[in-house]
Amino acid sequence: MTDVTTLTDSLPAGTVVTDPDILAAYRQDRAQDPDAGTPLALVRPTTTAQVQSAVRWCAEAGVPIVTRGAGTSLSGGATAVDGALMITTEKMRGLAVDTSTRTAVCKPGMLNAEVKAAAAEHGLWYPPDPSSFEICTIGGNAATNAGGLCCVKYGVTVDYVLGLEVVLADGRAIRLGGKQLKDSAGLSLTRLFVGSEGLLGIITEVTVRLLPPQAPACTVVAVFPTVADASRAVVAVTSQTRPAMLEFMDNTSINAVEDMLAMDLDRTAGAMLIAQSDAPGPAGAAEVALIEQAFRAHHAQEVFTTDDPVEGEAFAMARRVAIPAVERRGSLLLEDVGVPLPELPALVQGVAEIAEKNDVTIAVIAHAGDGNTHPLIVFDPEDTDEARRAQLAFDQIMGLAVSMGGTITGEHGVGRLKKGWLRAQLGDDALELTTTIKQALDPQGMLNPGVML
Amino acid sequence: MTDVTTLTDSLPAGTVVTDPDILAAYRQDRAQDPDAGTPLALVRPTTTAQVQSAVRWCAEAGVPIVTRGAGTSLSGGATAVDGALMITTEKMRGLAVDTSTRTAVCKPGMLNAEVKAAAAEHGLWYPPDPSSFEICTIGGNAATNAGGLCCVKYGVTVDYVLGLEVVLADGRAIRLGGKQLKDSAGLSLTRLFVGSEGLLGIITEVTVRLLPPQAPACTVVAVFPTVADASRAVVAVTSQTRPAMLEFMDNTSINAVEDMLAMDLDRTAGAMLIAQSDAPGPAGAAEVALIEQAFRAHHAQEVFTTDDPVEGEAFAMARRVAIPAVERRGSLLLEDVGVPLPELPALVQGVAEIAEKNDVTIAVIAHAGDGNTHPLIVFDPEDTDEARRAQLAFDQIMGLAVSMGGTITGEHGVGRLKKGWLRAQLGDDALELTTTIKQALDPQGMLNPGVML
Repeated sequence: MTDVTTLTDSLPAGTVVTDPDILAAYRQDRAQDPDAGTPLALVRPTTTAQVQSAVRWCAEAGVPIVTRGAGTSLSGGATAVDGALMITTEKMRGLAVDTSTRTAVCKPGMLNAEVKAAAAEHGLWYPPDPSSFEICTIGGNAATNAGGLCCVKYGVTVDYVLGLEVVLADGRAIRLGGKQLKDSAGLSLTRLFVGSEGLLGIITEVTVRLLPPQAPACTVVAVFPTVADASRAVVAVTSQTRPAMLEFMDNTSINAVEDMLAMDLDRTAGAMLIAQSDAPGPAGAAEVALIEQAFRAHHAQEVFTTDDPVEGEAFAMARRVAIPAVERRGSLLLEDVGVPLPELPALVQGVAEIAEKNDVTIAVIAHAGDGNTHPLIVFDPEDTDEARRAQLAFDQIMGLAVSMGGTITGEHGVGRLKKGWLRAQLGDDALELTTTIKQALDPQGMLNPGVML
Repeated sequence: MTDVTTLTDSLPAGTVVTDPDILAAYRQDRAQDPDAGTPLALVRPTTTAQVQSAVRWCAEAGVPIVTRGAGTSLSGGATAVDGALMITTEKMRGLAVDTSTRTAVCKPGMLNAEVKAAAAEHGLWYPPDPSSFEICTIGGNAATNAGGLCCVKYGVTVDYVLGLEVVLADGRAIRLGGKQLKDSAGLSLTRLFVGSEGLLGIITEVTVRLLPPQAPACTVVAVFPTVADASRAVVAVTSQTRPAMLEFMDNTSINAVEDMLAMDLDRTAGAMLIAQSDAPGPAGAAEVALIEQAFRAHHAQEVFTTDDPVEGEAFAMARRVAIPAVERRGSLLLEDVGVPLPELPALVQGVAEIAEKNDVTIAVIAHAGDGNTHPLIVFDPEDTDEARRAQLAFDQIMGLAVSMGGTITGEHGVGRLKKGWLRAQLGDDALELTTTIKQALDPQGMLNPGVML
């Protein structure tokens, strides 16, 4: 095994960790890939210069690098590789809000929730809101182009990143973009790095734009007899308006969340939709009426509307805890497939058929308003046959989404778990182009090997 | 000179043009670069396959390619090069609106205005609105990441492009993205190609997302004694809210437009601001009041507010015709510099000083709400000393913007006219990265040589 002494000696005491117990805690990310490797060592830099030192050491020693934020990847994007150096950006902390430009310059280890809170202190708003916003980092959000619940109206992370500092594979640190809102000078490198899943460089600073605060939202919740009714109601809403949130939960998810939170959800419902409108005044009232009408036209059994933000947040929270709630029933294979919106009913139907065919439980939650679904395949890892059937279902769902002109990942990234399907979605030529760019920027293939490609 | 017979024979009659009179009309774009070359021939393909044939022929013959949309580039991005093949996408026409996904699939030769009109027929809206929207193409908009007046609230072209078809330097046609709203599978190639100014490929199809229609806007117009007052008023507005439009014209621009349109603008004003709010109901009223108050607090001499869309559009039109209006006074060097918003007053002041120092007239118009200004340097091309001083001023203004942490181009692209300043803005490393990607995708350097790099 490579000797890390020279690396350890070049960085402040405690920055390089080789304690096996600590390494074990960093081997896996939230996807809990059983095939995760064991890293050579863990580096916890606090500055860009320390990241550069570590990357240069790796380049010289021929050691691959796995970059990790908070380790909340649901697709194995931060899973350790045997013999690789794991660099976590969690200790790179600090944030400065600039109200005059409505921007925040964030070190990558700041949590999404901390960015939101710092913006709010100045009466501003950072919209992207992955369900893990309280525990995931802004650096990881940028590396994966993270989405969330409000993205249906307010866009994903890339829509907010104005500038980056990135450490390249050869150890150089470059600055891209900045605080100016509009900039078309040169190729769009900032946007290329967002969502690049650590393949092109290590993000060491993120400048995000902030919005004026969101207007108070009105929440509409409805339960439906079937998932088909609910998904058709989604399309009826989105073809007419752009709600601030439009989330979907099926019966399995509803029951899992009800087991966890006991908030009196309807356990018999086939599906539930949670919509929000933040349009102010009469426009908001009209949007709420439109949503209610679309829900009723698609057989909603009960429609509950509230402009109490606490009540509204309770339903949003119910949706956000669905993954840990369903996880109580077994191990999960997490899908992130998306389709053009009119295909949503067929996708949801197809997932049900795949569950039945493979005799596995699949709970479905979705950022339905942008066609992005999270089928959660539940299995017992001790039951090898069920685990095999779960994997079959996992592959079949990605195949189904691709056949509908959709995507294998709407917001989690390809990571390690979905790369087998990337060619089917992108096609040979676009995949080759992706590889060409990767090789041009990281000719030694040092950065996050095995992720995406 | 290279013989184009084999190319001519491989394409439908009339597709390849060598008539010197026609070629002459395609040599220059709207930037009217006097150093424009003479193309070998002009190709007017109607299909992607024809573009591929032309590109393959060029790759074999070693002939460079200049791609052109409507030729409205203000930075020389579509200027001919001696001996190059010019490919215009203006005859690639056709558009399909899909209301169920709220998208439009557009051939690149469709005008921006045609995309807007087709969307509007279905009660939908395509926001990006370069001032040339009636004569520029959607393909050119995508290639340059075009901006416009509404971008201050609604974003630029890249924020609307969901999918592309692109012909690469080796003649392969690839499809990127599609109609799904969220997609994080693979590197963000779609966003990399938007704004790549023809350096990485030829855009042969653009899929854009559409929004529900914009709410009726209320327009606030005010005149100010000085440009300093007006630019401070801009910062006062943008630090508090995000208007749907916030445009700036200085005294020279006001007078040039008044000469052209005779719409009774105040010829004595130091500057004029045109703002719009499209927030509905009480939120809109509050935003209008905030804008009016910020204007008055910065010495607005007259504040005129109207919710009549025809009156509002008249002022927006006044702003849009400013470039041709100022052009009546001489040849123009067109700037497109942007700065972080708090620097706007200093930038406007600095431009005035540069005008005085070099003894040239510089009219300033601006998409002020996002810090993107268009100083228009007026000169007589017959007066070689004035032309020299104009060029000095042109360079000094870009230097000033870069020194303020700004950009040499907010929305027009680097083209040929600004490439000398790209290194100063990006720095050596980011410029090298740009070159690396260009070389990886176009190793022969065939596509738009001399643009950007």
